[in-house]
Amino acid sequence: METSNVPSFPPNAVIREVGLRDGLQSIQRILPTERKIEWIAGAYAAGQREIEVGSFVPARLLPQLADTAELVTYAKTLPGLRVSVLVPNLKGAGRAIETGADLMLVPLSASRAHSLANLRKTPDEVVAEVARIRAARDAAGSKTLIEGGIGTAFGCTIQGRVEQPEVLRCLQALLDAGADRVSIADTVGYAGPAAVRELFEKARDIAGERFWCGHFHDTRGLALANVYAALETGVARFDATLAGIGGCPHAPGASGNASSEDLAFMLAGMGLETGIDIAALLALRAMVARWLEGETLHGTLWLAGLPTTHAATATTDA
Amino acid sequence: METSNVPSFPPNAVIREVGLRDGLQSIQRILPTERKIEWIAGAYAAGQREIEVGSFVPARLLPQLADTAELVTYAKTLPGLRVSVLVPNLKGAGRAIETGADLMLVPLSASRAHSLANLRKTPDEVVAEVARIRAARDAAGSKTLIEGGIGTAFGCTIQGRVEQPEVLRCLQALLDAGADRVSIADTVGYAGPAAVRELFEKARDIAGERFWCGHFHDTRGLALANVYAALETGVARFDATLAGIGGCPHAPGASGNASSEDLAFMLAGMGLETGIDIAALLALRAMVARWLEGETLHGTLWLAGLPTTHAATATTDA
Repeated sequence: METSNVPSFPPNAVIREVGLRDGLQSIQRILPTERKIEWIAGAYAAGQREIEVGSFVPARLLPQLADTAELVTYAKTLPGLRVSVLVPNLKGAGRAIETGADLMLVPLSASRAHSLANLRKTPDEVVAEVARIRAARDAAGSKTLIEGGIGTAFGCTIQGRVEQPEVLRCLQALLDAGADRVSIADTVGYAGPAAVRELFEKARDIAGERFWCGHFHDTRGLALANVYAALETGVARFDATLAGIGGCPHAPGASGNASSEDLAFMLAGMGLETGIDIAALLALRAMVARWLEGETLHGTLWLAGLPTTHAATATTDA
Repeated sequence: METSNVPSFPPNAVIREVGLRDGLQSIQRILPTERKIEWIAGAYAAGQREIEVGSFVPARLLPQLADTAELVTYAKTLPGLRVSVLVPNLKGAGRAIETGADLMLVPLSASRAHSLANLRKTPDEVVAEVARIRAARDAAGSKTLIEGGIGTAFGCTIQGRVEQPEVLRCLQALLDAGADRVSIADTVGYAGPAAVRELFEKARDIAGERFWCGHFHDTRGLALANVYAALETGVARFDATLAGIGGCPHAPGASGNASSEDLAFMLAGMGLETGIDIAALLALRAMVARWLEGETLHGTLWLAGLPTTHAATATTDA
């Protein structure tokens, strides 16, 4: 009988809810601010403790997220909630610092072609911007963490292949420029679990605990397999969206993000503590699904329900 | 820098197409025999080399599968195709032997309650039936392999928990009764990847290479994560259905089986050779989807398409 080689997973895991940002930015309709506040309150009541509430981008570009400052202000009233926002540049970072967000994610695209098309900057120009953001943050005496998020890390619809050494070079450059955290995203759903495991191990070797989040799209059905592979490398924080909303504008109807509720179910089944009451999260999903009627939603657990063997792990008033 | 602990996966993997059995049995409409033959021919042309073509159960119970003998006869004309059927008992096994199927799968439910409700036998009575099937097979001088397939191995909608020692006891009993192969199925979509890895490692310790197939339902979105976890234990054969058809009658609309095309994409991305031309499989899916218009289909790859970076691995005339 061979020695068992079962990996030891981290005891806790975090699902960072990014539905209010990555989800809503890909939906045309604008969810009213009071609905978003209800969503944040519901996610908090269900046990979620990290939420990306929006982006500090010009409102003319993403009118859906124009109320981000108001949402940060509200979310900061919830004790123990880590409030994050996406910022594309120094100007956005200034607003994140002003509003007192706990973390600002600066996206960098490892695909040069994607970076130029979407950010109008090369990857190295984004790194330079992170250095300026770091200087501004420190000068302001702010505690807002800076996360460099490397997108298109497994390939890109424009450029095609994205080489691993380039991803790792960007990761090191972000750290050198002063990012407190780095994360890796499969922006277009090209990743598979073997590639995730290999890249995430190398990223952990470089960044240690500062490499702390994986972001997987479910475009080709592999988001949860990719999370599992990432967990095996010790990474224990994942972006996900309620009802899996969001995704690639180039493939209408294709699955968007990992769905928060399915991911919570997988993690619970693995014995990882997330603090989430899945039944409460499913109730929240039902509410948000009503608000987004007509939009393409995803996930499977809402339809099948929890197994009869699923033990409630927390009580909430949701 | 830590030593990398990336698991070494088997170089090849097999997707056993069970859509014609596990898929079609859960759909009310009866697909005509000529359509099924087109499906088998298309799957073969796309590179699939193992197909479960039907069940030898009474036609009054499953009229959708009444043409199984004819399908075995056709499928046996395709060189190198391993043709399997499901048989619930000795009588069905007799027909599998007569028609010259390469393999007959005898289902056993590790949940006693599920076994009594669905098979009207206890697990041990199924084991005794396998012993009779083995004796009949040997007496006939037949080469039809006997696979004992253990269902509800991760829990059951009727009984709830199914204990791991009981699953492993059934597995050993099937081998002792003369099963040539054993497999494990998550019949109702309760499994998660950590549970799969643990159970599959133990099953491999007991059965070695005779434990050769995993069968996962995607009811709660975890089928592909579960396959990945199983691959890490060295198991390299998986049941799947084109368009993910099939599933649990207790949850209408809930995802059925792992979808063959999404699974093929995952395996290809991991560098595992399956012999499958994914583009040809997607074309076949489109054809079968037209035949099954109005039924609930699953899978994501068909909608998103192959990544631009996906290299064609085979040429077919499909």
